[in-house]
Amino acid sequence: MSEIRSLALACRDAAQTMFALDSEAKRSLLHDMAAALEANSDAILAANARDLQQASAKGVQGAMLDRLRLDQARVASIASAVREIAALPDPVGLVTRRETRPNGLEVERVRIPLGVIAMIYEARPNVTADAAALCLMAGNAVILRGGSEALHSNVAIATVLRDVLARHDIPAAALTLIEDLRRETMIELLQLTDIVDLAIPRGGEGLIRFVAEHARVPVIKHYKGVCHLYVDASADEALALNLLVDGKTSRPGVCNALETLLIHRDIAESFLPNAARALEERGVELRGCERSRALVPGMRTASDEDYAAEFLDLILAVRVIDDLGAAIGHIQRFGSDHTEVIVTRDNAAAQRFVQAIRSAVVMVNASSRFSDGGELGLGAEIGISTTRLHAYGPMGAEALTVERFVVRGSGQVRHPQH
Amino acid sequence: MSEIRSLALACRDAAQTMFALDSEAKRSLLHDMAAALEANSDAILAANARDLQQASAKGVQGAMLDRLRLDQARVASIASAVREIAALPDPVGLVTRRETRPNGLEVERVRIPLGVIAMIYEARPNVTADAAALCLMAGNAVILRGGSEALHSNVAIATVLRDVLARHDIPAAALTLIEDLRRETMIELLQLTDIVDLAIPRGGEGLIRFVAEHARVPVIKHYKGVCHLYVDASADEALALNLLVDGKTSRPGVCNALETLLIHRDIAESFLPNAARALEERGVELRGCERSRALVPGMRTASDEDYAAEFLDLILAVRVIDDLGAAIGHIQRFGSDHTEVIVTRDNAAAQRFVQAIRSAVVMVNASSRFSDGGELGLGAEIGISTTRLHAYGPMGAEALTVERFVVRGSGQVRHPQH
Repeated sequence: MSEIRSLALACRDAAQTMFALDSEAKRSLLHDMAAALEANSDAILAANARDLQQASAKGVQGAMLDRLRLDQARVASIASAVREIAALPDPVGLVTRRETRPNGLEVERVRIPLGVIAMIYEARPNVTADAAALCLMAGNAVILRGGSEALHSNVAIATVLRDVLARHDIPAAALTLIEDLRRETMIELLQLTDIVDLAIPRGGEGLIRFVAEHARVPVIKHYKGVCHLYVDASADEALALNLLVDGKTSRPGVCNALETLLIHRDIAESFLPNAARALEERGVELRGCERSRALVPGMRTASDEDYAAEFLDLILAVRVIDDLGAAIGHIQRFGSDHTEVIVTRDNAAAQRFVQAIRSAVVMVNASSRFSDGGELGLGAEIGISTTRLHAYGPMGAEALTVERFVVRGSGQVRHPQH
Repeated sequence: MSEIRSLALACRDAAQTMFALDSEAKRSLLHDMAAALEANSDAILAANARDLQQASAKGVQGAMLDRLRLDQARVASIASAVREIAALPDPVGLVTRRETRPNGLEVERVRIPLGVIAMIYEARPNVTADAAALCLMAGNAVILRGGSEALHSNVAIATVLRDVLARHDIPAAALTLIEDLRRETMIELLQLTDIVDLAIPRGGEGLIRFVAEHARVPVIKHYKGVCHLYVDASADEALALNLLVDGKTSRPGVCNALETLLIHRDIAESFLPNAARALEERGVELRGCERSRALVPGMRTASDEDYAAEFLDLILAVRVIDDLGAAIGHIQRFGSDHTEVIVTRDNAAAQRFVQAIRSAVVMVNASSRFSDGGELGLGAEIGISTTRLHAYGPMGAEALTVERFVVRGSGQVRHPQH
């Protein structure tokens, strides 16, 4: 048997133990994990120093190097994130529906853990603790496969957390970190259909495509966020401008940032020149259709590629459209199913937009930047799904569980004899 | 572009129309479909006669041929199943949770259709109408790929249903039947990751493995049901015997039939000889462990293969075990995550069984034969999932939808500029 298969089998066995833990046991586990991270911060920082040194030697610098760096404050913030997860409502055991059938059977729908979750991620070492804590809180066992740059840091963090599992009489395999980072090993992991219940890739589009391409186990993925703001004819212009500036400029490198502005033609003449001025003041480059360019001289022409692009940068595609139907058509053609916003004072228009748009998050008069597990009340987020199955949009602890049936009877049979 | 891709793209476009239909529009569509099936039963039966003739010529006979056969009564029952689906509660638009965030954002979780569902199935032509109606009722477009034996019947049924779609101003592509039954075409369909949101295979294990092997789109599958009945030390023996006889003999060829009996050693001496007599009277062959064979002379020895088998026949594997923990261990090792039953008068034992067993359906003092969408209150069933993701257990209309986020605000931004 290959090493990865035997590690994964041990994780699956440990999932049986996780499955039966009650909320108090899981909370106590996570609190001890948080304390252990703080108590062992020197060892974690020493391991992180080795990662930083190797990365520097390879020429990594700037923001990339900073994402890898831990210090006492960052370790403390990792520990505090684990404590926050311990404080979340436990989704496991939640009875979502209860019905008594005409024959007296009591049928309940009850949430249970998924089982074994494989997290595939890139540089940030905090994901090792974050993702593990959220998976464990939802009663799952977890297989972690991080990036090579953070390997020493990840091993140090996982070692601390596994020691805590063992102290709680839970097999340490419930948190399994893969140290063999060869691609063929990752492919083998992604094909363990009898062991892994779900794979969640978190990182750049290249990583996600690689996982989707090779996985035989179920994958919940999020490719990109091409988020739209549509300014309706009846919009409050000042409000629309606030949402536009917040959506585009407050953090342009994240998936819930705006990438395209659609404007109803009846409001374009008044709104677009103001909007262009406000955005250009903040360094945003605009690329627009002919009608936009007629209103904002000097704007570059937008191509279809621009309308499909996730810029993750201070660039905004702009289009003046004839009506709400055209806005919906544009989003259906170019959207990525992530987050779309309508700005309007017309309730019927808002309702029509919500009903026609299939994206994971649809917003009326609010910033796209709220499309985030914490902001929407999930407490913690393991990712944002643009897969229209199981979970769609920000995923919290509940998305790491599934509903099953518990049936209680008093001897009912389907075909009584005699 | 390949023909299958262009058919599927048209189906995806039609999904946008389905997405926006309200409940009344869908109910009226399904009622007209039911009426059209009845009105066109002559054409459907003529097509079916061609399928029957070709099947007979190939030597198909008996139960296989019967599964393919339609008559006026069966067409009427297909129509009436479509009317029953039209009467189900519409899962689309259901607000499952509503919360106002501290910043005033109103966050709702609302069910929406999945989009495009590909159904891959075998001989019975009624699935063409059943599955289509359930997918459409949940607001989805559907691609149907049935078996070659039923092709003429499937085409006739699909033609009738597509005419009704067109009369309702819905693109007929919302119900697309694949007539090109080559395997490479099915493989291409299963890899249209930008079009197909979910594939559901329904049929024998060979078909399901083929789909799982080749799919790149998400698949919800159900391999087999190795269902267990555990008779606890405190069981009511008469009640246990009823559940055993019903579970094993009322319809041995279906997935929710019992395959293995586990008996607590303290009750085995009294229960097993009676049970063996009752089962043998009904033609059931028993295969048991040494302790079972000591109580029932003549019982054949059970192998590990017997304990892992879905017999789908009048055969039952039997094992005497030491305690509840051993029963749980046996199910964890040999179970298929489908349905397990405990018979007990001890609430603590029932609770421990429910908490430890991860199967889709867990029952206390009820027959495994109730593990069925209709019996558990779903109204209609598109399959039973043993995939612990999205839906687990019997799947009805709700399993063909997913929750997303609708957020309503009054201009909230994440990083106020002031």
